Amino acid sequence: MKDKLIVGKIGGNVIDNAASLQTVLDHFAAIPGHKVLVHGGGVLATQLAKVLNIPQQMHEGRRITNAETLEVAQMVYAGKINTDLVAKLHGRGVVAQGVNGADGAYIQSEKRPVKPIDFGFVGDIVSVNGERLSNLISSGVVPVFSAITADLEGQLYNTNGDTQASEIAMALSPFYNAELRYCFDKPGVLTDVEDASSLIDRLSANHYRDLKNQGAIYSGMIPKLDTGFRALNNGVQTVILGGTEVFNLTHTTHTELVL
Amino acid sequence: MKDKLIVGKIGGNVIDNAASLQTVLDHFAAIPGHKVLVHGGGVLATQLAKVLNIPQQMHEGRRITNAETLEVAQMVYAGKINTDLVAKLHGRGVVAQGVNGADGAYIQSEKRPVKPIDFGFVGDIVSVNGERLSNLISSGVVPVFSAITADLEGQLYNTNGDTQASEIAMALSPFYNAELRYCFDKPGVLTDVEDASSLIDRLSANHYRDLKNQGAIYSGMIPKLDTGFRALNNGVQTVILGGTEVFNLTHTTHTELVL
Repeated sequence: MKDKLIVGKIGGNVIDNAASLQTVLDHFAAIPGHKVLVHGGGVLATQLAKVLNIPQQMHEGRRITNAETLEVAQMVYAGKINTDLVAKLHGRGVVAQGVNGADGAYIQSEKRPVKPIDFGFVGDIVSVNGERLSNLISSGVVPVFSAITADLEGQLYNTNGDTQASEIAMALSPFYNAELRYCFDKPGVLTDVEDASSLIDRLSANHYRDLKNQGAIYSGMIPKLDTGFRALNNGVQTVILGGTEVFNLTHTTHTELVL
Repeated sequence: MKDKLIVGKIGGNVIDNAASLQTVLDHFAAIPGHKVLVHGGGVLATQLAKVLNIPQQMHEGRRITNAETLEVAQMVYAGKINTDLVAKLHGRGVVAQGVNGADGAYIQSEKRPVKPIDFGFVGDIVSVNGERLSNLISSGVVPVFSAITADLEGQLYNTNGDTQASEIAMALSPFYNAELRYCFDKPGVLTDVEDASSLIDRLSANHYRDLKNQGAIYSGMIPKLDTGFRALNNGVQTVILGGTEVFNLTHTTHTELVL
């Protein structure tokens, strides 16, 4: 019988809202047993790039990360947000450890292929060392991951946080009964994004495919749902998407993915 | 018989010089066995504060750290420099782990007393958890510390890097035969700062006291020597100060402190 482990992912819009963040961290800190936190970015990196006059290159709505933008991502995600989150958890009695870039050799990424578009210093995860990470977790430490990763040569990359959370949960599933929870600014998956009562309690892979084909799932949800179903198909026991109460384990208003 | 361990401290002026930094990291990565790296800041934080129009308050040449200056320190020391150093060591085959702020609960600091002067978010180290840190090191990981620390409530502070290196070496000395090496922009302690041939090979506590009374030791050296002798008086076996070759263990041009 494996121990339970929760991998929580918090998005940028939760980080940007001080009241939401406090609620989320209170619930996360109160989760008993093993856990991991993965966090996104928020508006601060964009604001800092603007103040520093670093032009933001976009391609079809996706950001191209040049060397200066990577530095800003390092400073904001690894320096400001990650250090703040670890300190806030520490203040709630949690022994946390930030994991950024090449830290601990837990995650290996590689530069995203340059065709059709060179996204610059954007990385895709090659592997997560689940055994090494489970040793850290079993010592009572809660790892807190920013979306900055590195390749074997030590080149840093900006990485997708939803993918990272999913890959971490998969890599830990041989060692734990792993549960993945995405925390964002909606109570779960909605068929009408303006109407909280349109929440889907349990979303099957087939239902998701139909909704996506109908265009009923909005764009920011697609990476969460794609990586969520990928986790569920690869050893992760439970995948849940919800709002600021998603780490409150007695709260049941959320979307659970089912195969 | 305890294993040997080297605690290396690199100063800001080494970090600011790309060629020096490469040499220093090559030597540090090549040190066999257990080791710890502690790093200072450099000019980047001052430059960023200037670009962001954050006024720098000084008192008798020492910086007062307000909330905005602390944010800049977090971004530059924990985000940029620490993440870069860990990645550069990773590229040299070292499994490194950044330790910033409350990471791992390895270091507890507290706000410096507000009298006679309130330095703002400047912290003094209360304790280093040597047992927890030695467990990390014995697992084959090289911890890399920035000078950002935290108190029990999770408040972050800017901390003196020389003091931090010394306190870490002392806390690890029950577990290892600890050696402390300060790397800076001179080949060691000089009686004439303009003349490298005035290097003192072995500096005793008495000789240091005499030189300090004569005003022959320049100001930036005093914290290194004070904390170095403190380490030597508190279980650390060897304390060495030197230049970019100080982590090259076959190089003997440096200053060794003796009691």
